[in-house]
Amino acid sequence: MDRNIHTFIGCESEYKDADVVIFGAPFDSTTSYRPGTRFASSAIRNESFGLETYSPYQDKDLTDYQIFDGGDLELPFGDPGDALRKIEEYVDGILEDNKIPLMIGGEHLVTLGAVKSTVKKYEDLHIIHFDAHADLRNDYLGVTLSHATVLHRCHDLIGDNKIFQFGIRSGDREEFRWGKNHVTTCKFNFDTLEEVVEKLKGKPVYFTLDLDVLDPSVFPGTGTPEAGGVTFMELLEAIKKVAELSVVALDMNELSPMLDQSGASTAVACKVLREMLLLFGTEYQTED
Amino acid sequence: MDRNIHTFIGCESEYKDADVVIFGAPFDSTTSYRPGTRFASSAIRNESFGLETYSPYQDKDLTDYQIFDGGDLELPFGDPGDALRKIEEYVDGILEDNKIPLMIGGEHLVTLGAVKSTVKKYEDLHIIHFDAHADLRNDYLGVTLSHATVLHRCHDLIGDNKIFQFGIRSGDREEFRWGKNHVTTCKFNFDTLEEVVEKLKGKPVYFTLDLDVLDPSVFPGTGTPEAGGVTFMELLEAIKKVAELSVVALDMNELSPMLDQSGASTAVACKVLREMLLLFGTEYQTED
Amino acid sequence: MDRNIHTFIGCESEYKDADVVIFGAPFDSTTSYRPGTRFASSAIRNESFGLETYSPYQDKDLTDYQIFDGGDLELPFGDPGDALRKIEEYVDGILEDNKIPLMIGGEHLVTLGAVKSTVKKYEDLHIIHFDAHADLRNDYLGVTLSHATVLHRCHDLIGDNKIFQFGIRSGDREEFRWGKNHVTTCKFNFDTLEEVVEKLKGKPVYFTLDLDVLDPSVFPGTGTPEAGGVTFMELLEAIKKVAELSVVALDMNELSPMLDQSGASTAVACKVLREMLLLFGTEYQTED
Amino acid sequence: MDRNIHTFIGCESEYKDADVVIFGAPFDSTTSYRPGTRFASSAIRNESFGLETYSPYQDKDLTDYQIFDGGDLELPFGDPGDALRKIEEYVDGILEDNKIPLMIGGEHLVTLGAVKSTVKKYEDLHIIHFDAHADLRNDYLGVTLSHATVLHRCHDLIGDNKIFQFGIRSGDREEFRWGKNHVTTCKFNFDTLEEVVEKLKGKPVYFTLDLDVLDPSVFPGTGTPEAGGVTFMELLEAIKKVAELSVVALDMNELSPMLDQSGASTAVACKVLREMLLLFGTEYQTED
Amino acid sequence: MDRNIHTFIGCESEYKDADVVIFGAPFDSTTSYRPGTRFASSAIRNESFGLETYSPYQDKDLTDYQIFDGGDLELPFGDPGDALRKIEEYVDGILEDNKIPLMIGGEHLVTLGAVKSTVKKYEDLHIIHFDAHADLRNDYLGVTLSHATVLHRCHDLIGDNKIFQFGIRSGDREEFRWGKNHVTTCKFNFDTLEEVVEKLKGKPVYFTLDLDVLDPSVFPGTGTPEAGGVTFMELLEAIKKVAELSVVALDMNELSPMLDQSGASTAVACKVLREMLLLFGTEYQTED
Amino acid sequence: MDRNIHTFIGCESEYKDADVVIFGAPFDSTTSYRPGTRFASSAIRNESFGLETYSPYQDKDLTDYQIFDGGDLELPFGDPGDALRKIEEYVDGILEDNKIPLMIGGEHLVTLGAVKSTVKKYEDLHIIHFDAHADLRNDYLGVTLSHATVLHRCHDLIGDNKIFQFGIRSGDREEFRWGKNHVTTCKFNFDTLEEVVEKLKGKPVYFTLDLDVLDPSVFPGTGTPEAGGVTFMELLEAIKKVAELSVVALDMNELSPMLDQSGASTAVACKVLREMLLLFGTEYQTED
Repeated sequence: MDRNIHTFIGCESEYKDADVVIFGAPFDSTTSYRPGTRFASSAIRNESFGLETYSPYQDKDLTDYQIFDGGDLELPFGDPGDALRKIEEYVDGILEDNKIPLMIGGEHLVTLGAVKSTVKKYEDLHIIHFDAHADLRNDYLGVTLSHATVLHRCHDLIGDNKIFQFGIRSGDREEFRWGKNHVTTCKFNFDTLEEVVEKLKGKPVYFTLDLDVLDPSVFPGTGTPEAGGVTFMELLEAIKKVAELSVVALDMNELSPMLDQSGASTAVACKVLREMLLLFGTEYQTED
Repeated sequence: MDRNIHTFIGCESEYKDADVVIFGAPFDSTTSYRPGTRFASSAIRNESFGLETYSPYQDKDLTDYQIFDGGDLELPFGDPGDALRKIEEYVDGILEDNKIPLMIGGEHLVTLGAVKSTVKKYEDLHIIHFDAHADLRNDYLGVTLSHATVLHRCHDLIGDNKIFQFGIRSGDREEFRWGKNHVTTCKFNFDTLEEVVEKLKGKPVYFTLDLDVLDPSVFPGTGTPEAGGVTFMELLEAIKKVAELSVVALDMNELSPMLDQSGASTAVACKVLREMLLLFGTEYQTED
Repeated sequence: MDRNIHTFIGCESEYKDADVVIFGAPFDSTTSYRPGTRFASSAIRNESFGLETYSPYQDKDLTDYQIFDGGDLELPFGDPGDALRKIEEYVDGILEDNKIPLMIGGEHLVTLGAVKSTVKKYEDLHIIHFDAHADLRNDYLGVTLSHATVLHRCHDLIGDNKIFQFGIRSGDREEFRWGKNHVTTCKFNFDTLEEVVEKLKGKPVYFTLDLDVLDPSVFPGTGTPEAGGVTFMELLEAIKKVAELSVVALDMNELSPMLDQSGASTAVACKVLREMLLLFGTEYQTED
Repeated sequence: MDRNIHTFIGCESEYKDADVVIFGAPFDSTTSYRPGTRFASSAIRNESFGLETYSPYQDKDLTDYQIFDGGDLELPFGDPGDALRKIEEYVDGILEDNKIPLMIGGEHLVTLGAVKSTVKKYEDLHIIHFDAHADLRNDYLGVTLSHATVLHRCHDLIGDNKIFQFGIRSGDREEFRWGKNHVTTCKFNFDTLEEVVEKLKGKPVYFTLDLDVLDPSVFPGTGTPEAGGVTFMELLEAIKKVAELSVVALDMNELSPMLDQSGASTAVACKVLREMLLLFGTEYQTED
Repeated sequence: MDRNIHTFIGCESEYKDADVVIFGAPFDSTTSYRPGTRFASSAIRNESFGLETYSPYQDKDLTDYQIFDGGDLELPFGDPGDALRKIEEYVDGILEDNKIPLMIGGEHLVTLGAVKSTVKKYEDLHIIHFDAHADLRNDYLGVTLSHATVLHRCHDLIGDNKIFQFGIRSGDREEFRWGKNHVTTCKFNFDTLEEVVEKLKGKPVYFTLDLDVLDPSVFPGTGTPEAGGVTFMELLEAIKKVAELSVVALDMNELSPMLDQSGASTAVACKVLREMLLLFGTEYQTED
Repeated sequence: MDRNIHTFIGCESEYKDADVVIFGAPFDSTTSYRPGTRFASSAIRNESFGLETYSPYQDKDLTDYQIFDGGDLELPFGDPGDALRKIEEYVDGILEDNKIPLMIGGEHLVTLGAVKSTVKKYEDLHIIHFDAHADLRNDYLGVTLSHATVLHRCHDLIGDNKIFQFGIRSGDREEFRWGKNHVTTCKFNFDTLEEVVEKLKGKPVYFTLDLDVLDPSVFPGTGTPEAGGVTFMELLEAIKKVAELSVVALDMNELSPMLDQSGASTAVACKVLREMLLLFGTEYQTED
């Protein structure tokens, strides 16, 4: 008899066989408003059993894929620098083995650890960023490693005109001003996604999905819900579009399960994760 | 002084005068994920007093109708077969008296009891099924009487090409495959409803409404919320369309009130029920 | 060191400098269904710190405005008449100083106190009313001062054809009948808003916003959620339209924070309030 | 078939046969802090089905009693005076028929309506009052009919030295001062109950139980929980002691069900109600 | 890298090395009131990381023990007979390997599966039963396999005078009557536990702990909270007493995590489980 | 008109007149389990209006005291060192003005900032520590500034035999071992408090109260509830005992309001705070 193994539904491959590796980064130490995203990866695994492995949207099934679920990293609350180092090292290992890391946050700051690792392998890295918030501050109450600064820090690593934001509907005035000269921001929706995807074809892309890009009606379980977001179907179509690119690493973050006791927020996160795995993973065999 | 009578708002007719009989089937013993639909009928009665009897959508008023509320059946948890028998017998009585039964679940399995009764009276019965889930499994962990198999069991009773599903967006691969040869499934929405209604004119119809066909933003209070559902107005228009048919029995199920502590899910269920009563019942007199 | 000052974000002007005065009217004594709006103004202040002062919708910033937050009135539960008198007196003071009062309810009845004051200064007052409920009853269980009668009471003060309602989707039959002869009601949406605004240009307008005009998916945190409401973006556009008029006083009411523990309802109320302040206040200086 | 009858468990007698009449007074219009007691009587009926009719504490069974459940009064929010009149009239009828009224509040103010009625029949009425709060204010923000003044108002009716309070652990300084000269207060516990009961033997007694006399650990579901209260067993013993007196009318109030989503507060209220019915009602037959 | 292993804190031994095997029986299909115990074992594993492995009560540490966590059985909702068979088989395997099974329910019915297995190995099996409810019905609405009948069914297997109940404070009259002749019941508390333990020394004992024996103030997260229960310290002392016996199998059940959103109920269940493991397991080495 | 001032009830003195200064330290960045204590000070102010200024326990009234409420510090999430510096500086100012600081956490780490300041003024500082957890780790996942290490860090500052802990019932084995040689720990209760108080008479004392020393039945609203705690009355008596000492600074921490939606936890925190203010502040005048 084996000790209790607990993975996202349908993600039961061994590491060596997998082409996608999912793992949790349960960290929310810099969250300035309502914390709780540390519980996201665990909740997503638990609740995934209310989901099917089969997607009627794509007519594909997770059972035909090879995905490894590495569980959660143990990250030190109160020391963001060290937490990011641990994430970076973990992603280093996955990339070295030529697999795609898919990190489940946690607060958005965790993205920085994964990007740091990815840019070492892929020098010309571009970032596609779906979010309600610009996350472009230079510091937040003097703190430079923060959920509110994470895309600015990514810009420090990859430079101008490599970050493409969509769905943004919140930020301070300074963020939007700075952003105009350094990143490309599509406010409120995905209107310019198609042209951006055309432009980035062939380039290595990191895809970071802050789930609060969804409208709070669909996804209330997040620290700072921002009215006026996108629907689930709009998000799904946009992710499909991103999947036309060479996405070499990706993440999904900012679910705070205990803020939505109906479970609907966790359920939609599970569904988005299933669809991403079916889009960014490789279909090995199809039963027929 | 009378003992405390407690009905859905505006449904205060005596049995003999009524043409529609509503009753609760508080059973959720086979629910595989988050239970709680057993509390739906009671919650709907309680919360109906936050609603009006008048519908501005239809310019009709429940006070002009003759509806009897028979309360809740007492169903044995842990014995689905016996529970279904009790439902069947109760519906037998209503149909015998030439009234329309409107059952409030409970989990979706309760539909089977009512369909069993209805098909005895109406041999050529057809089923209109609104749902997020296909419910077409043959068994679930070996159990053949389950919320996940209920439409398959209905098919056992009425045969091929008599079940028409709408809004379906979840199921395992096998369900969809089996469904292709035995039932008619409109995935995600009501796009083909109009033509189905044309086709079924004149035939006896059982209408089963799993409220989780609604988007979880509108209706989070259900065991397995599935993102990507329909809006309240889309559902209302679809029900109006179904009301053009000879609906001889119907049900509404899968509200789990305690999963949505805002009360919005129960409120929308109450409103859907009011609109259904105004559509499927008979307007006796109009005040003017 | 100063005692703890607690205002809505960005509303830190002194009274003398302000052109808009916000204040809370924490009263819900006549609420017939689920109470709790008494906590709205306090929750809105607390939660406003999850918001930015900058609006990407309008490219404006609260830091460029002069708004005074007067805190909450102390209102006697159980004595609606006295509560309304206290509101009226407070608004008298604000109007006398030629400032715009923006009251945060509380139940909708509080509007009557503010309208009473406003109509004393602006004889030809018109009312724009966004709501799910008509609120046109003459009495409710014999009570004439009630959340369900408030617009009828306002009509008592300003007379026929001066009240314009939008988004209404609930009421009893009698309310709609009475309304036809005395007020102008646009059911379900804002379809006729543009023409109404054209017509009212130049006239003094009181704008009362019952937040339950929003769909419950966006705003579940209210006593009587009514499915079939408007989206946040539709509401925002409608408010912008109203801002073309001479709005001399306004209010926002019916948030019941504890009914939505995700915080999303309070967050959308904060956002609506920010946009209203940016629309109805005066931009003093712009940083550049 | 009968319309849905909904009573507290085991209270299914007809009015004419009953010696105890329970009814709800769902009113909380003057509640100054967190409202919600209006939902108590309905919740108690619903949740009573998680209880047994048999009490192992008393070895008695509700099925051997004759209790009538008259349902809930319809009380006008926003008009406390009228609400109290409606309660008074209803109690008048019960007392006239020589039955014992047991009212389920609602906020504590409802007691005043019942006491007004009772004192008309029993001139020498005494009151036993269990509560965390003294409720002895003369007015509250100018309002004289308030949950915070109710025992002062009762004193207006019955005079000095007729009110005996137990468990009191909250009030303003003035209440305690006034109380010293007019009522008898046992702070924190039931230490002097036995001697009071000795003293009141043979006199007509109204017993008013504010459930917040219980410790908030046992009963968190109330508007103003006050730490340092009594246990369930202490309360049960105290009620048994009171039952040695000639209690001619009684009430139980201040459960606010939605403040305790575990349901434990409603469950303890149900259990207290069962024990009170077994103590203050008459055992008609014993099965054996 | 290993797939994500998820156990109760400190229970990381391999099966072959362990002397105690914990596993979940997530089944609540016959629960007649509020379901949800199916989520207990998963919640207990998740929340155990808020606990320490070290007990200051016993000065022992789980890290010195050999405990295997086998995860959760997959049990068919709606078929109690089959669910019990699956439990029985699993326990058969554990007992065959001379290990102690510690099952985490689920509803109390799951005990029957484990007892069925245990009595096959230990003919003279006795049962120690801590509970608020007698669970001695012969059937419940005609269902014989039910949480409300489980101890009666155990009696069918092991006969008269072998079941010893403690803490019982709820049941119908018939249960208590039947019980008098067949089992030994200590109502309300553990007063007679010491003498029972003396009597059972040397005999094989099955220990079943329904956590609702605890007072609802300590443990509100259960389907039918019964006021008047024991404290945590009283329970701990009682379990220590039971540990003087030859306990050959045991279980802990009736936590319903989602009914107590504070997490305190799950936390106390974790703590009780830790103490039980330290009492019923074997201390292998002590670090020093 | 003044901007909205928001203080704990009855704490409305100006700074210059006050002898006690309360302020919030809303920081929980190192909380390893369930965060949320950042919201404590704000919730305590809000909810204090459900409390009276008068204490029947002490027959004293906050209106006779001079207490200043300085509001909340703005602390940088993700940088514990800087947060502690900001707390230290703020306390420096208060101590310099010969006032007593009473800090409301936040997580327990905030104590370190206040102790750092206090020990600069009072070299021979002793600490009285009420808590469920020992908080004596040297580091937690490598982090030395953590809620789990805070008393060890205090020990770094003040040395051996100066810290006296009470109520401790959780910690890892190593903490208890280390503690034996460096601090004085009274496990589970306050049994040795009286003798400790005797010993510390005349010495300067810092009093730190982790509210989770209370039993979770009384205080479920905390990140890591530990069964087996003290009652409210036991805590109150213990605090009175501590008030016999020369307490020069104090704090109260670890309330996480959103974990207890009944509000009872926040209410007990408010009551404890009132009693502490009446004990550690100075009664200026008594009305009579």
